[in-house]
Amino acid sequence: MSAAPNLVAPAGVLRGTRVVLARRVVRAPSHEDFRIEPFDVPQLRDGEVLVRNFLISADPGSRSILSGDSSYTQALEIGNVMEGFAMGEVVSSLNPRFAAGDVVTLGAGWQTHAVVGGRGYLSKIEERRLPWSYWIGVLGVPGMTAYFGLRRVAQLAEGETVVISSAAGPVGATAGQLARLWGAGRVVGIAGGPAKCAWLREVVGFDEVIDRHERPDLAAALAEACPKGIDVLFDNVGAAMIDAALPLMKVRGRIVASGAVGDYNVPQRERARVANTDLFISRRLRMEGLVVFDDLRSFKAAQAEVADLILSGRLLVAEMIADGIERLPEMFCGLFEGEGFGRRLVRIGAEPAHA
Amino acid sequence: MSAAPNLVAPAGVLRGTRVVLARRVVRAPSHEDFRIEPFDVPQLRDGEVLVRNFLISADPGSRSILSGDSSYTQALEIGNVMEGFAMGEVVSSLNPRFAAGDVVTLGAGWQTHAVVGGRGYLSKIEERRLPWSYWIGVLGVPGMTAYFGLRRVAQLAEGETVVISSAAGPVGATAGQLARLWGAGRVVGIAGGPAKCAWLREVVGFDEVIDRHERPDLAAALAEACPKGIDVLFDNVGAAMIDAALPLMKVRGRIVASGAVGDYNVPQRERARVANTDLFISRRLRMEGLVVFDDLRSFKAAQAEVADLILSGRLLVAEMIADGIERLPEMFCGLFEGEGFGRRLVRIGAEPAHA
Repeated sequence: MSAAPNLVAPAGVLRGTRVVLARRVVRAPSHEDFRIEPFDVPQLRDGEVLVRNFLISADPGSRSILSGDSSYTQALEIGNVMEGFAMGEVVSSLNPRFAAGDVVTLGAGWQTHAVVGGRGYLSKIEERRLPWSYWIGVLGVPGMTAYFGLRRVAQLAEGETVVISSAAGPVGATAGQLARLWGAGRVVGIAGGPAKCAWLREVVGFDEVIDRHERPDLAAALAEACPKGIDVLFDNVGAAMIDAALPLMKVRGRIVASGAVGDYNVPQRERARVANTDLFISRRLRMEGLVVFDDLRSFKAAQAEVADLILSGRLLVAEMIADGIERLPEMFCGLFEGEGFGRRLVRIGAEPAHA
Repeated sequence: MSAAPNLVAPAGVLRGTRVVLARRVVRAPSHEDFRIEPFDVPQLRDGEVLVRNFLISADPGSRSILSGDSSYTQALEIGNVMEGFAMGEVVSSLNPRFAAGDVVTLGAGWQTHAVVGGRGYLSKIEERRLPWSYWIGVLGVPGMTAYFGLRRVAQLAEGETVVISSAAGPVGATAGQLARLWGAGRVVGIAGGPAKCAWLREVVGFDEVIDRHERPDLAAALAEACPKGIDVLFDNVGAAMIDAALPLMKVRGRIVASGAVGDYNVPQRERARVANTDLFISRRLRMEGLVVFDDLRSFKAAQAEVADLILSGRLLVAEMIADGIERLPEMFCGLFEGEGFGRRLVRIGAEPAHA
């Protein structure tokens, strides 16, 4: 497919390009699970906004809607547009809160254009000192997940030992830095491969990083890295990670269940399971799941705080941006192969100027 | 051994009787794991109180200190007195806060006499309208576990569906009744055998009771009993129960990890494990362990509230009381064989009058 979608169809209909789910995904997703196709952008109705998307994210959490093998996640139907967050520019608006030229974040899906109502996750960006991409990264879902996971769920206290899995991802790298900035005594990350581990150790400033490729016995590696135990496990990996860390959790320890990238590709029956749950009692442990949209009302203040940390050079941001909507499947599949690090985004159109 | 211990030894030393751990317990505890023996009651020192115990409890949670096969529980040493709560009468006191004749609750262990300092779990009972036994039952650790498990940990809300495992035990039966009194929409219990189930259904007033002997497929039985899902799982059984209930938990559901009677007798490596932990994320579940001593400061008000419910006939209490200190091992071992129901206590001396 061409990545230049702005052909106006004969009847005055705007034609866009989108990526849809082509088939149910079994185990790791592959390029063939998706299909790129043109579509007719719907006509605007009262209260709606037409957005031209220019940046789209590849989110590991979206994997959970692709299998449809479980009774509990709402599966994406075959032929429907794949979900993803976007930065877009308003093209035309029948909503008094938005005007042409506004830059917005939205849950657009993998498509060049979206017609959205004013409600839900559609938010105008007025701060122009930071790259647009940050608003669907460190100031968007992954960054806010790190923020509210540590602050609301973990209620991190001074001097505590924090373990962060998938630490080179955008949630993990942000969480590790926030933990340090908020007074954690020791921040330990887990990542795969020497490049990520060196980056986390030397650049980002984790106290200790475990390379899971070199240390298949994760429980032993964690015990060495956390000789006094773990206060907070910020987990992005799932059951195997929780299982390895649980016996090391200290009294009143907290497990933030933030992601399960290690579970999504494995059929239910083959997934890791968590042992030693009786420790929840003797140690008064708490495990709590986090979906950051529950914190939407507190986003503005949190975003301002994180933006300040970035502008003052105290918080590093890592991104990996590819160009062309056709690269979205590849960028998404790479998430599960441990490629690269930082936020994974695809630029699908020209970015508005930071005027 | 004789159960009449009050022999004064030649040197003026008071002789008591106690039950000690005779060997490490493997799987289900048996009578042979304990030994009954005389001991010299220590001399009182300043600040201490000598208590003659007359009621002692058999607590399933004590099983966790008997194996010593795990690195994380503080194991009871062979030859040491077995732990247990007691009601006692102060014999003599070198502590200004207690006087001879006071009736107290204490963490005495399985022994006829205890010399204790004024600190820790030593509490004078002034309310005399209720049986003494209630103060180490429905008004003691099991009752308070039910109270704070539902109120502080689960934060039960009106109309919610509550599932309670080991429902005929003193924690479970109290939790089920409190849930109902506090506005739960549906209270479902799990117990073993027709007598317990009938009691819970007909007398205690659970909406539905699952007989786990008749329904080995617990997950299916729970799904039938909770067609709209579970808001609160108040669990006294452990990993197998949590695993069965987890897929039925509703968004923002809470799991109160209160006991693990199904895990204590099973070596670590053979225990059930919990699958589907990724549901913690998508459903924002919270699982939290409870050790009720964390709530000691709030006991007085909670006890007054529960006492009112009992005195006004709105809360039923079930107890099973045996006589003679030598019956403690048998009453304790029976906990794991699903015998009887309600609080299990042993009377080891005359109860003071309710003057």
